[in-house]
Amino acid sequence: MSNPTRERLIAAAIELFYDEGIRAVSVDAVAERAGVTKRTLYYHFKSKDELAAAYLAARDQPNLATFQRWFAKTEGSLPDKIQGLFHGLARAARRPGWKGCGFLRTSVELVNLPGHPAMKIGAAHKKNVEAWLGETFAAAGIVEGVPLARQIILLLDGAFSVVLLNRDPSYMDAAGDAAFTLVSAALPQDRR
Amino acid sequence: MSNPTRERLIAAAIELFYDEGIRAVSVDAVAERAGVTKRTLYYHFKSKDELAAAYLAARDQPNLATFQRWFAKTEGSLPDKIQGLFHGLARAARRPGWKGCGFLRTSVELVNLPGHPAMKIGAAHKKNVEAWLGETFAAAGIVEGVPLARQIILLLDGAFSVVLLNRDPSYMDAAGDAAFTLVSAALPQDRR
Repeated sequence: MSNPTRERLIAAAIELFYDEGIRAVSVDAVAERAGVTKRTLYYHFKSKDELAAAYLAARDQPNLATFQRWFAKTEGSLPDKIQGLFHGLARAARRPGWKGCGFLRTSVELVNLPGHPAMKIGAAHKKNVEAWLGETFAAAGIVEGVPLARQIILLLDGAFSVVLLNRDPSYMDAAGDAAFTLVSAALPQDRR
Repeated sequence: MSNPTRERLIAAAIELFYDEGIRAVSVDAVAERAGVTKRTLYYHFKSKDELAAAYLAARDQPNLATFQRWFAKTEGSLPDKIQGLFHGLARAARRPGWKGCGFLRTSVELVNLPGHPAMKIGAAHKKNVEAWLGETFAAAGIVEGVPLARQIILLLDGAFSVVLLNRDPSYMDAAGDAAFTLVSAALPQDRR
């Protein structure tokens, strides 16, 4: 199913769109980074909109897998493991190339196009993370797993947004502390 | 100190920048909306950057005052009153012209200019809200008022960001529930 030229174009789009934003990067720049002509790019993607959607679609499963890896690697109880997601984010935010969440940034860049395909993919990605959290909470015996998953999504996205504005990664840890409190409070008494 | 032409330009910038974004709106469009020439605009603002900063500076105190009004108007305990901020946001997000938080959106639009004056004003605005929350918590006898204020900021900004992406204002209420839990858990036993 995969096509090496298409994959190279998506890789170039990921680099450039994440680094500079969708509006700031031209289709020509993506073609050039991928080492193909603009004509070849338009053979694979009908429009810049379609390329922007493909960029986010390509980040959906890898980003979810990163959260799952941080969760799995963190030792301790469920609240500790959820806090581990935020410690992972704090480490990521201290790296030079970090620029927040590409999905959330797209919703700002396309603020007047709420039905845009890239927006739908962004919203679906957050739902995928939320669904994984909800299942994780249900498996731990938390009855209100879905509302709690939403609360953790809100803290994750709050952390992305606040740190992009103030560039102070310690807010990631503050979000992790809040998540720890919320998950602990939701656990059944006998599992705390 | 105030100058009516300058005030009219700022009012036009608030309308257009909030509605469409800073990058999408030209200086000409702001001058036209304000009913002045571009030359007059540049007499009051050296650059678009300075106009963008003035737009956010003009929203700092009014937005803080809105939060304070929602807090004051909500009956009940401290957790109820903090939850009232999120109910206020949920109502705002259901209005047609709502497009998230102008301060956070600016941090996305200027992602590669972290030292930009508008970014500094955005970060300072969040600090002002955080300081007000911290004082409010300290006055209620909460020892860890500052960390709790940071957690509430993270939920507020998470709510702005998530709802801008998924356009589902019920996430505002989910954030309010999380805030209620966190503030309740932080209250001294004898004040719960």
